[in-house]
Amino acid sequence: MILPHINEIASLCAAHGITQAIISPGSRSASISLAFENHPEIDVKVVADERSAAFIGMGIAQQLRRPVALICTSGSAVYNYAPAVAEAYYQEIPLLVITADRPPEWIDQYDGQTIQQEGIFGNHIKASLSLPVDLSHSDAKWHSNRLVNQAILVSEEYPKGPVHLNVPIREPFYPSEGDKYEYPETRRITANKTERTLSENTWKELLNVWQKAQSRLLVVGQLEPDSDLTESLTLLQSKTNLTIINEVTGNQQDIEKAIGKQDLFLQGQLKIQTPDLLITFGKSLISKNLKIFLRKNPPKYHWHIKEGNRLNDGLQHLSNNLNLSPTYFASELTKRVSSENHSDLNLDWFKIEQEASRKSEEFIKQSDFGELKAVHNVLQQIPANSQLHLANSMAVRYANFVGIRAKGVEVFCNRGTSGIDGSNSTAVGAALASGKLTTLLTGDMAFLYDRNAFWHGYDLSNLRIIVLNNAGGGIFGMIKGPKTQSSYQKLFQTEQPLTAKLTAKEFGFDYAKVKNEDRLNDELKEFFKPSASPKIIEVFSDPRKNEEIFTAYKSYCLGL
Amino acid sequence: MILPHINEIASLCAAHGITQAIISPGSRSASISLAFENHPEIDVKVVADERSAAFIGMGIAQQLRRPVALICTSGSAVYNYAPAVAEAYYQEIPLLVITADRPPEWIDQYDGQTIQQEGIFGNHIKASLSLPVDLSHSDAKWHSNRLVNQAILVSEEYPKGPVHLNVPIREPFYPSEGDKYEYPETRRITANKTERTLSENTWKELLNVWQKAQSRLLVVGQLEPDSDLTESLTLLQSKTNLTIINEVTGNQQDIEKAIGKQDLFLQGQLKIQTPDLLITFGKSLISKNLKIFLRKNPPKYHWHIKEGNRLNDGLQHLSNNLNLSPTYFASELTKRVSSENHSDLNLDWFKIEQEASRKSEEFIKQSDFGELKAVHNVLQQIPANSQLHLANSMAVRYANFVGIRAKGVEVFCNRGTSGIDGSNSTAVGAALASGKLTTLLTGDMAFLYDRNAFWHGYDLSNLRIIVLNNAGGGIFGMIKGPKTQSSYQKLFQTEQPLTAKLTAKEFGFDYAKVKNEDRLNDELKEFFKPSASPKIIEVFSDPRKNEEIFTAYKSYCLGL
Repeated sequence: MILPHINEIASLCAAHGITQAIISPGSRSASISLAFENHPEIDVKVVADERSAAFIGMGIAQQLRRPVALICTSGSAVYNYAPAVAEAYYQEIPLLVITADRPPEWIDQYDGQTIQQEGIFGNHIKASLSLPVDLSHSDAKWHSNRLVNQAILVSEEYPKGPVHLNVPIREPFYPSEGDKYEYPETRRITANKTERTLSENTWKELLNVWQKAQSRLLVVGQLEPDSDLTESLTLLQSKTNLTIINEVTGNQQDIEKAIGKQDLFLQGQLKIQTPDLLITFGKSLISKNLKIFLRKNPPKYHWHIKEGNRLNDGLQHLSNNLNLSPTYFASELTKRVSSENHSDLNLDWFKIEQEASRKSEEFIKQSDFGELKAVHNVLQQIPANSQLHLANSMAVRYANFVGIRAKGVEVFCNRGTSGIDGSNSTAVGAALASGKLTTLLTGDMAFLYDRNAFWHGYDLSNLRIIVLNNAGGGIFGMIKGPKTQSSYQKLFQTEQPLTAKLTAKEFGFDYAKVKNEDRLNDELKEFFKPSASPKIIEVFSDPRKNEEIFTAYKSYCLGL
Repeated sequence: MILPHINEIASLCAAHGITQAIISPGSRSASISLAFENHPEIDVKVVADERSAAFIGMGIAQQLRRPVALICTSGSAVYNYAPAVAEAYYQEIPLLVITADRPPEWIDQYDGQTIQQEGIFGNHIKASLSLPVDLSHSDAKWHSNRLVNQAILVSEEYPKGPVHLNVPIREPFYPSEGDKYEYPETRRITANKTERTLSENTWKELLNVWQKAQSRLLVVGQLEPDSDLTESLTLLQSKTNLTIINEVTGNQQDIEKAIGKQDLFLQGQLKIQTPDLLITFGKSLISKNLKIFLRKNPPKYHWHIKEGNRLNDGLQHLSNNLNLSPTYFASELTKRVSSENHSDLNLDWFKIEQEASRKSEEFIKQSDFGELKAVHNVLQQIPANSQLHLANSMAVRYANFVGIRAKGVEVFCNRGTSGIDGSNSTAVGAALASGKLTTLLTGDMAFLYDRNAFWHGYDLSNLRIIVLNNAGGGIFGMIKGPKTQSSYQKLFQTEQPLTAKLTAKEFGFDYAKVKNEDRLNDELKEFFKPSASPKIIEVFSDPRKNEEIFTAYKSYCLGL
């Protein structure tokens, strides 16, 4: 039987410009899967493990900046979406999570794949909507149409995020032989985009604070790449006395004078003055020393620029949540501020940054081979205008210390919930959607955790993976505390003997094993060039050695 | 810093007899992990992937019939527990889910692994409790002690199930060097077990119905093995006119005259009369034809025997939910009923069962090699007093058709939510906890989905796995509907080329590839014998051939 209201979900998605769907196979969801697969404007991919499927969908949505439809069957399949749904919620990535359900009379009757799906994503979803079960009354058809429209529109309105569309379906699940795939005429409800702006009076007040501030610091946390923003900030910095700190996930490394060594030079005794005015953009900050510095040294004013009023007060001194997009704010501010000379204070930050960069390079050049050097060399070679995905734990931290050389590299990391559970899959989604060379820098734990990311037949030839294999959870050796415990190796370091080799074999990746610098540099010569297969370089290093190097690195750069 | 109230969680677990904990590594959870690891009465295992860790813990709890502690860090780690938590909820397996959390002031501040953990398991948890953040007031210590006691007691009271203990922890996470692991004196609150019984008057009413019923049918759905129950039912059947249908997951196959071929002989035109009195035990039923028969042919009375009043009315004619344990009910009923001659009606069922068994054996003997024959031959050889774990989709269905020969085989399957997401891990947990020979019968999809089940170093030498590899989701070829779709292969059959070989290599399993009956029988000769390593036999077969055989099998046995 073809269910018109199910086909309408696909029609409405297409009408709203949702053209990508990730399906995990199931019986209850058959009519939804078929409706999407048969729709001429929608591209469907099939991924078996729902946990990976959802992160792949999220990776695609992150690239397209449009919702991707996730489709799965009823039961625990839905719960396997939850890690990616939470990540998408905090990263504000739009997703349309479509789950087949049993009709309500069958819930809790021990009859197949049935759990309580309504509202299952708790607080990590923008809206949870259930379609009507019985479509015989015309009001129910009207209701169904409105709910689908609403789900799509809500996922795209600021803050973007996942929306759950739960679809109870009675048997029969499958169309009969010869049933034609017809898509009913449907009503698409549009919602115009609106832009938040400030009145001239408010601007006057803000500019008053800006003008009076002796020193101003802009910190960019995790932010999606946006060339308009980068352009505005470059101009703003050239015109005014503004220090810009960019985290590696802030995607502002193309601003020539952006500071990036904050986690290095803000350790220990600080010679830098607290800014009068702190402006922040974006989400999570990686640099622990930066966070400590800003918490311990409150600025007079802290403006956080972010649409919506979900307060992010992680630096503990927020005074003004400016409900605006950073792009609008930066562009308008640049227009309004008057040009000024760069003050000595401003130069202080740059001097320290330059000195930190010099010492960092100096140390790494002479240091033994290990993860630090490996990450440094990889990030020196990563091609311009490609994508870099960083896994959580040490990969993102290393990258934030050493920085990226090439221009136009877009950086992503699952810092919404900072899990290791979907970094492979997110990179896979990005590789599929962007078509760009996509490099994932990851540890052995995150890599092995999410191996099912590759369990499908789609072309990943533009994917490159660097696995930092330290035989376990190396991060626990890097932080104070765990090492002093007698049970350290068992509980924290997660000693694990696996490598990426068999995974590479299983999924058709070229594979190279690297244990020293020469070999790494050799491999890197060809690594980023176009190829028929995806590639993995696995860098083996001794976790204890890595800890020593990392400690020495930090102390070499101490007291700048 | 050692936190006394965290150490108290471990002390209380030990005091309540919880001796097994599965830990997934994390920093926020460090003090919990160390409290359990250092406690002399608790055995700790470390499993990296929380999804698998939770199913392994559930597999252990299922064997021990006692709660197992699951310990993970904050953030999306918690959501990776959700599939197993839902399965445990519906299978009523006790679990103490202990999750480290950030203190509430840090929620939603984009600062590390943080999601909204309170109440995160929605309706799939018996209780969600959060420990106090600040323990400085003595009332807070009293509160913390009570909450831990309550979590443990609630997980064990009927219906058993998972309980969530959320533990917000402020830094510092790690004890200082030299800190001694001392466990504070603690108050354990006990709760005596109570047994539900019936008054003599109620028994009289029930016996009145029993006596008047011309025909009586007992159907045993999924039920944990219980030799007392099997004994009572054997006696009851010898004494009275009672037909007992046992599903393969009902664990009553040791009752000599239990019927097991219901899914075969209840297809098509039925010659069997509806019982006057239907009694049911247990949870999920597998036999679709049995469910259809009982729904279409309502009995005069349907008693479901189950503690608690969560109604399971999946057969649609429930008249009396007897809030009792099946063991008590069967034992008391057996005492009270008077002996009677076996009626012709009763014999009808047995005759049909015997005829179905004969025809089933006859068909399988002469049929080509495929999954049906493979499962049959494996289940003929599986040793007495061992464990059989069945994965969802076709494995459990095949097993329910062909049945088990040896005595004392305990059968398990994740039929709470009927997912494929944790069958490897559940079997791993059972192998670790029971020490018995543990055989898992699974398909390629379920096997590959949950490979991280083996990602740890624990001894699995008593584990045996039969992988039915039909290069995808074979079940969709077995049911009507999907095959008629042009997109069948892409959406449903999930054609996938992987085998279990590399997984076996990665995790140190002996591995044999089998494509015909002789080779299978050869391999089976040694397969179940004790060995130093776990073993896999992977049975390759053509999905189209399997469909043909299965269709021919059913039609051969039609019209009994």
